[in-house]
Amino acid sequence: MFACIGYATESADKPLVPYSFERRDVGPKDVKIDIAYCGVCHSDLHTARNEWKNTIYPCCPGHEIVGTVTEVGAEVRNFKVGQLAGVGCMVDSCRECASCKEGLEQYCEAFFTGTYNGTEKETGKVTFGGYSKAIVVDEHFVLRLPENLELAAVAPLLCAGITTYSPLSHWKVGPGQKVGVVGLGGLGHMAVKIAHAMGAHVVLFTTSPSKVADAKALGADEVVISKNPDEMAAHATSFDFILDCVAAKHDINEYLGLLKRDATLCQVGAPEDPLAVAVFSLIFKRRNFAGSLIGGIAETQEMLDFCGKHGITSDIEIIKIQDIEAAYARMLKSDVKYRFVIDMASLEAA
Amino acid sequence: MFACIGYATESADKPLVPYSFERRDVGPKDVKIDIAYCGVCHSDLHTARNEWKNTIYPCCPGHEIVGTVTEVGAEVRNFKVGQLAGVGCMVDSCRECASCKEGLEQYCEAFFTGTYNGTEKETGKVTFGGYSKAIVVDEHFVLRLPENLELAAVAPLLCAGITTYSPLSHWKVGPGQKVGVVGLGGLGHMAVKIAHAMGAHVVLFTTSPSKVADAKALGADEVVISKNPDEMAAHATSFDFILDCVAAKHDINEYLGLLKRDATLCQVGAPEDPLAVAVFSLIFKRRNFAGSLIGGIAETQEMLDFCGKHGITSDIEIIKIQDIEAAYARMLKSDVKYRFVIDMASLEAA
Repeated sequence: MFACIGYATESADKPLVPYSFERRDVGPKDVKIDIAYCGVCHSDLHTARNEWKNTIYPCCPGHEIVGTVTEVGAEVRNFKVGQLAGVGCMVDSCRECASCKEGLEQYCEAFFTGTYNGTEKETGKVTFGGYSKAIVVDEHFVLRLPENLELAAVAPLLCAGITTYSPLSHWKVGPGQKVGVVGLGGLGHMAVKIAHAMGAHVVLFTTSPSKVADAKALGADEVVISKNPDEMAAHATSFDFILDCVAAKHDINEYLGLLKRDATLCQVGAPEDPLAVAVFSLIFKRRNFAGSLIGGIAETQEMLDFCGKHGITSDIEIIKIQDIEAAYARMLKSDVKYRFVIDMASLEAA
Repeated sequence: MFACIGYATESADKPLVPYSFERRDVGPKDVKIDIAYCGVCHSDLHTARNEWKNTIYPCCPGHEIVGTVTEVGAEVRNFKVGQLAGVGCMVDSCRECASCKEGLEQYCEAFFTGTYNGTEKETGKVTFGGYSKAIVVDEHFVLRLPENLELAAVAPLLCAGITTYSPLSHWKVGPGQKVGVVGLGGLGHMAVKIAHAMGAHVVLFTTSPSKVADAKALGADEVVISKNPDEMAAHATSFDFILDCVAAKHDINEYLGLLKRDATLCQVGAPEDPLAVAVFSLIFKRRNFAGSLIGGIAETQEMLDFCGKHGITSDIEIIKIQDIEAAYARMLKSDVKYRFVIDMASLEAA
């Protein structure tokens, strides 16, 4: 074991503060990464505050991790010291179930090991995430990063990027298709960029007229103010696919009615309460309402390569780790364009 | 025009009574059918009582029609006088939209013309259904019937049969699959028979222990009493497809949790109120919640041929047209195994 520092919280009602802990030494298949940047996902906040009622304390969040390899185990084949590397939402899975064998570790039947708030197989201890100086991860769950992109802005691809890329790819979004993205936040702004790069005609739905110019700059061909019934009605039964990135409660039926026959609305935002679905809307056009969870490791690598090729990164605001609570407070007001990323050098600068 | 007799109601709160009206004469592409039997669908009752708030009175229901061809137009190619023929839920559609051209007239973008309570293009009048002596329909919407099946028991295939066959076929149900059917009524009992004939392992879900023996006799490999949480939990994440035939309000999430990753639950029962869908259940296994509406004409013919080959008919109880109100009352209590069929000879016997 080696000593590591990071930021963690001891309970749902306390702030994140400096925290010292131990990580396992590098095993034969492990890669040790010195963390340069870590993106701030809304899941970090949900978990820190125990909003999903499953948090193990102390809790050190962070699953949008990028940095440099500082050590590799004897059996590691794909990474070398000095190379850029990333870690997303998963650091392990059973590797034996049908989903794992298909490269869909996110749907592991024994549940994948979360990068934080999971249980590390090697030690039996809770996993600590990327709000920290370094991390040790089995190379199967480590990603190669494009060299041509701004490193800090790559971090959010590891969660926000793959969470939107995976369903866009699974439902075969491409040229000639009209694709909707609901909500322009961390997920939504990545979905707009990726769907645009995939060649689709992208329509962004937002409640905020102030976001129109931004959405178009990000790659949206059209922007619909979803509070305007006439604008919504003009798009009835016209979409090949809609990706709903809104985690707050909202009327999903307004969007289901915009799908063509046989088309799918996929939810990646995860509202806590059930959504009311008008069954007639599904029946009369054989529409589908679906969900999707992050992406598999191979698909995450594919997404990173795609983003490298198309020059796609997240729009970010870099913060110091000491400002994480202020960042959370701003996230709750949607006051971020479009992802906070922690400069982990700040950890030792204090 | 020619004089026709049937049963119709003048308003939502009045019973069906004998009714005389006119039908159009046989045009060049039309087939005239002397109606032998007409199945009684729950939609008939919904429409007679204006429960969907769109009924045009007087209303003569019935869209599970079988009989004998008595006249054909000069351009009719596929039907001859004396031949058995059937008519389902549709008697026309635009025939020009993408759905019509793909043979999916049920999803016609201009809306198909219902066999009753629609607007007949030829006359501009409301369509009258199969609770009548005869009907005139464009041959495109007339079906050939298997000669080897009991004619009265074929009638419900035209709605209940195709409504269940179409999604089972669309989602490629077949050997090696575990398929759930929710609810053992008019739709459910057809779904069990058809899914069984398609080679699937069929599990019937019912709230009624009294239906276990029936379900197994109809072709179910297993029967689950859905009120028993332990029985339900034993089937978690194990189904390739579930067809939900329940029109009453119910907890769909109990069934979504039984689907494997990437599997679909399709609703063909049509609850009036929206159903609450737990989004996490969709997200964590990339599950789909979908709907399906009857079937296209070509697919309806395929279903009838399939039923002929596999010896599949509906389980029915034959009634006289004079007993239709009593039959409706029993339907409301689910007191029918599993479909009422009107012997239309009773129309002239009174």
